[in-house]
Amino acid sequence: MRDLDAGVCAPRGFRAGGIWCGIKAGSRKRDLALIYSEKPCTAAAVFTTNRVQAAPVLVSREHLEGGILRALIANSGNANACTGEPGLAAARSMAELAAGEFAINAGEVAVASTGVIGVPLPIAAIESSISSLADSLRSDAAGHEAALEAIMTTDTRKKAGALELEIGGKAVRMGAMVKGSGMIHPNMATMLCFITTDAAISRELLDRALRRAVGRSFNRVTVDGDTSTNDMVIIMANGEAGNVPLDAEGPGFDLFAEALQTLCIKLARAVAGDGEGATRLVTVSLKGAATEEAAETLARAVASSSLVKAACFGADANWGRVLCALGYAGADFDPGKTDVYFSGPAGEVLVCKAGAAVPFSEEDAKRILLGDEIEIRIELTGGGSGAATAWGCDLSYDYVKINGDYRS
Amino acid sequence: MRDLDAGVCAPRGFRAGGIWCGIKAGSRKRDLALIYSEKPCTAAAVFTTNRVQAAPVLVSREHLEGGILRALIANSGNANACTGEPGLAAARSMAELAAGEFAINAGEVAVASTGVIGVPLPIAAIESSISSLADSLRSDAAGHEAALEAIMTTDTRKKAGALELEIGGKAVRMGAMVKGSGMIHPNMATMLCFITTDAAISRELLDRALRRAVGRSFNRVTVDGDTSTNDMVIIMANGEAGNVPLDAEGPGFDLFAEALQTLCIKLARAVAGDGEGATRLVTVSLKGAATEEAAETLARAVASSSLVKAACFGADANWGRVLCALGYAGADFDPGKTDVYFSGPAGEVLVCKAGAAVPFSEEDAKRILLGDEIEIRIELTGGGSGAATAWGCDLSYDYVKINGDYRS
Repeated sequence: MRDLDAGVCAPRGFRAGGIWCGIKAGSRKRDLALIYSEKPCTAAAVFTTNRVQAAPVLVSREHLEGGILRALIANSGNANACTGEPGLAAARSMAELAAGEFAINAGEVAVASTGVIGVPLPIAAIESSISSLADSLRSDAAGHEAALEAIMTTDTRKKAGALELEIGGKAVRMGAMVKGSGMIHPNMATMLCFITTDAAISRELLDRALRRAVGRSFNRVTVDGDTSTNDMVIIMANGEAGNVPLDAEGPGFDLFAEALQTLCIKLARAVAGDGEGATRLVTVSLKGAATEEAAETLARAVASSSLVKAACFGADANWGRVLCALGYAGADFDPGKTDVYFSGPAGEVLVCKAGAAVPFSEEDAKRILLGDEIEIRIELTGGGSGAATAWGCDLSYDYVKINGDYRS
Repeated sequence: MRDLDAGVCAPRGFRAGGIWCGIKAGSRKRDLALIYSEKPCTAAAVFTTNRVQAAPVLVSREHLEGGILRALIANSGNANACTGEPGLAAARSMAELAAGEFAINAGEVAVASTGVIGVPLPIAAIESSISSLADSLRSDAAGHEAALEAIMTTDTRKKAGALELEIGGKAVRMGAMVKGSGMIHPNMATMLCFITTDAAISRELLDRALRRAVGRSFNRVTVDGDTSTNDMVIIMANGEAGNVPLDAEGPGFDLFAEALQTLCIKLARAVAGDGEGATRLVTVSLKGAATEEAAETLARAVASSSLVKAACFGADANWGRVLCALGYAGADFDPGKTDVYFSGPAGEVLVCKAGAAVPFSEEDAKRILLGDEIEIRIELTGGGSGAATAWGCDLSYDYVKINGDYRS
């Protein structure tokens, strides 16, 4: 497995593009993206668990039932959520407009939106620009970049990745772009992630690999505890790599699933590190819990705690807040058998042993906590083997600033 | 029922006081409080649900098993949490020191602490000051004030209340003080509340009334989603009012329970309004849910949402975030049958009808949202009768500032 400095156009047979169509009325930043595959793709997706589901989520969910995708159209600047029947009609129109450009079925087009909730989607802007968007598609890095820019909202960094692996002697590639910075929380919160691959793989196995990868990556990221109405991860596999199709579990599938998980974790970390207003990425790793599930519940609670996040912003080694968050997480553990370390590129300090204070150098702790990346490492010494990692970020003044007046 | 401008010394037979004993080493602010009853009290308490329980919680829980209290000793500046066996010994010493002053049993003394976690409690400071604390007790407002000051940490306001009601022709009083501003979340989070009453009431009914009142007041307050290791609500009833003892449900008990709930709601609102860095109190009221429990879950999710809270800080009528929070709350509701109003002393605007946008005056909304008190009023129109109110506050720059470097 090797990293590629590329995105959704890395796998063969995919083209992508992005333009400004007018939804982001003020800024003239790109706001409409398209990803297209020459050949039909098996496809799988994971959608938001929020009970309020945006129109594009409803439409994409319906289209994914067929299991085959050719294209994916996405806009930023407007979430098309809480927009009633007209919103649903607009989401359907987006799919139809894209389908019309390639003479494919609208049911083979996924739709995604992100942005402000409750404002009617200006579908006319999309209609008048769809042809130039289709014309702009490219199979190189520039196509990927344009599409990625067109799905960004409060993101401050471009978050993408690609890698290549070998399955049965054939080079298989996968590439991805992700959007998300606020409203990020376990279970698919305000995030769009589009993944392409040229692997030949059955729909069932693709779905299995995606769910597993998302469970250990995006669903363990938290920025602010809010889960959104719009989010989705979609993967499209067009089979252009020419590998013997993966249609049963085995070494080939394991390689594919592992690579997909690696790619998703890379992007999940990027989302956490680009949390709204974040100044540092906070990784919470926990081992020794009774089960992986318990470990995940505990690690997530620490990564989600506003008080832990504020302490990370202030580079304050306030480990009592870590214990406190473990205490209300809802999973079983013995506070008296809990060790906590703060670590980072600048070193590591043990700050809590067996649930109680130990002497440590405040100076060393400060140096570690001032880094761009902090790890809060928790070891439960009661003998369990459950381990999990969660990712978050600090809570800064800028989070409040960004979200205090988002609509204007 | 009438309000009294008083606190825990309003009921007959209680004395209170507070001094500086040296735990808050730098500030010389009061840090040690004592409340004492001339007569034995029936007592009831509700404790934090955090799995990490501070030493004073463990000790008070044990002492409450006897059901009789004479005194309550509390310190601020040190939580005596995550302090192991020495911490437990220190909490027991606090009870013994107080008991020694009045020649009562240590088991009749409740203990509470609040402040930084994981630092050994300097019990010597308490030991050397306990006599002057006992000497300082007063039965008037000054005693109450001193005790209240001694339990405050990041609180910016004194939060207390008292009221008088008549039960069977006798005037019964109750008074309370509360401490809490950060780390406040449903289920008794970082908050200390001490309530006194001169009602004669059985332990069982006192417990029932307290649990009901706390469930509809403090457990519906949220500041930051963190629940603490230390919190408790304790009520002591000394019977000095001379009413026929309440020992069975009936009109007398109903009056008492209603008064206690009124007092607790008043204090819960004060805690929310004094949330760390808060600039405005946010009340979320919801009706039309299937059950009261569902209504509470939904209202709490809205009051807890970082995005809703940041929008309140920015006076931004971003109602989509309200829908979104309802959507991930975890209780059943129909987004298509949901109306949302923003209201306050400056008026009321309907911002969302049947789950979708309605035209409203942004100017009116801004005026309402700039008030010190905002109500987010949610009506589910599907026909249920469950209603609940939750209280929170906005999320400001100052929350981050206060919590970025709490220990220093």
